[in-house]
Amino acid sequence: MNDPEHTRDAFLGGAVQITQPRQGYRAATDPVYLAAAVPAKAGDCILDVGCGVGVASLCLAHRVPEARITGLELQPSYAKLAQENGLRDVVIGNLAAMPDGLRDTSFDHVMTNPPFFSASDHSLPASKGKAMAHMESMDLGRWISLSLRRLKPKGSFSIIHRADRLGEILTALEKSCGDIRVLPIAPRSGRAAKRVLVRARKVSRARLQIFAPFVVHEGADHGVDGDDYSQDAQAVLRHGKSLLSKLTDA
Amino acid sequence: MNDPEHTRDAFLGGAVQITQPRQGYRAATDPVYLAAAVPAKAGDCILDVGCGVGVASLCLAHRVPEARITGLELQPSYAKLAQENGLRDVVIGNLAAMPDGLRDTSFDHVMTNPPFFSASDHSLPASKGKAMAHMESMDLGRWISLSLRRLKPKGSFSIIHRADRLGEILTALEKSCGDIRVLPIAPRSGRAAKRVLVRARKVSRARLQIFAPFVVHEGADHGVDGDDYSQDAQAVLRHGKSLLSKLTDA
Repeated sequence: MNDPEHTRDAFLGGAVQITQPRQGYRAATDPVYLAAAVPAKAGDCILDVGCGVGVASLCLAHRVPEARITGLELQPSYAKLAQENGLRDVVIGNLAAMPDGLRDTSFDHVMTNPPFFSASDHSLPASKGKAMAHMESMDLGRWISLSLRRLKPKGSFSIIHRADRLGEILTALEKSCGDIRVLPIAPRSGRAAKRVLVRARKVSRARLQIFAPFVVHEGADHGVDGDDYSQDAQAVLRHGKSLLSKLTDA
Repeated sequence: MNDPEHTRDAFLGGAVQITQPRQGYRAATDPVYLAAAVPAKAGDCILDVGCGVGVASLCLAHRVPEARITGLELQPSYAKLAQENGLRDVVIGNLAAMPDGLRDTSFDHVMTNPPFFSASDHSLPASKGKAMAHMESMDLGRWISLSLRRLKPKGSFSIIHRADRLGEILTALEKSCGDIRVLPIAPRSGRAAKRVLVRARKVSRARLQIFAPFVVHEGADHGVDGDDYSQDAQAVLRHGKSLLSKLTDA
């Protein structure tokens, strides 16, 4: 491909091939982890809120081929790429003004990787609020509340986000969910988490749980020779394994 | 001591000796961890909200002898024991109807180990709400909000609680605090956390952080030969070391 505006990237060891814009938000590992956390079975209906170019949906489709996955995406250019990447059912629309077809539909699972600034983004302006507003089209709590409306009772909701947004996520979830499962994702053993994966169930009364962190890289420091993914990370990122066993207590 | 109603228990390897009731809430490791998380310096004023028989305060006094620590306790019998145990400044009173002397005072640090049911308490009734009401004199969010009123701007607030209460804790803290630091406390490596220690600073704008869990016991299973505390746990529980290094990223 000789396209100056797009790149072609391999996910799940090449099983999922994604065309995405060279500039702007670029899918990396977050949507892969997200898809790996969804407890979907064959025949289940899943909504991917803010599906972007479709990475989470296509990773989930790879693991659960008979799941019925719908992507919702605000930006037509991303929605078009998601379809070209192989996600058949993509709805262009706004969470706050849900298209007719979706407004009447309830899903078994909702997953979302909301747009956000990376903490490592050096272009982050000094004012956090300004930076968020630029990138995030909507308050995170509202994004979650609106997403939960599309969920059947007892349905699962999964979100991946920056670790520092945990408070907002839990505040939004505790209004209507239980069985909240928090999985911190840490770059190395012993380090603070950079990301947090949270799964919950609508109307459940089960207690919140904080699981042992998912550790992405081996060792204490970044290996000079490139790849030092942990066994756990390789299983999810290369081989498309689920994270379900990390979201339950041994 | 030949007292059928009380026991005499050693904390910090015997440096702190505590008389406490044989029945009812009994201080174990939670108040020790709590005291270890407070970033107090000589001369700082600390309020211990719901100080019970004084374990957290006396452990903190052991590590920072020149800290000025005040305990607030609703139940006169616990307050009396706290004084007998060596905590000079104990105020009998209710957080919701703060005694005059405290209502006008702001502290550099507030710490609290609110009364709660242990998740391992087999007598826990089926209805979670009912169980809480029995033990907890006040909604946890309100307990935290009222505690924060006694804190100076930029002062630190520290709380230890059951891990499943993390959502309520963060919801309450995010209203007026920043620099929220979450330390899960797990019984073993790889296991879900049973407790969570959360420290925050009033009016700070710093981002929330989730640290690597503090692991209490070595190995995968409970040792047959009794003591299998991790090095980290021994340092805190036996030798009175602080947890401050666990609340910052390596």
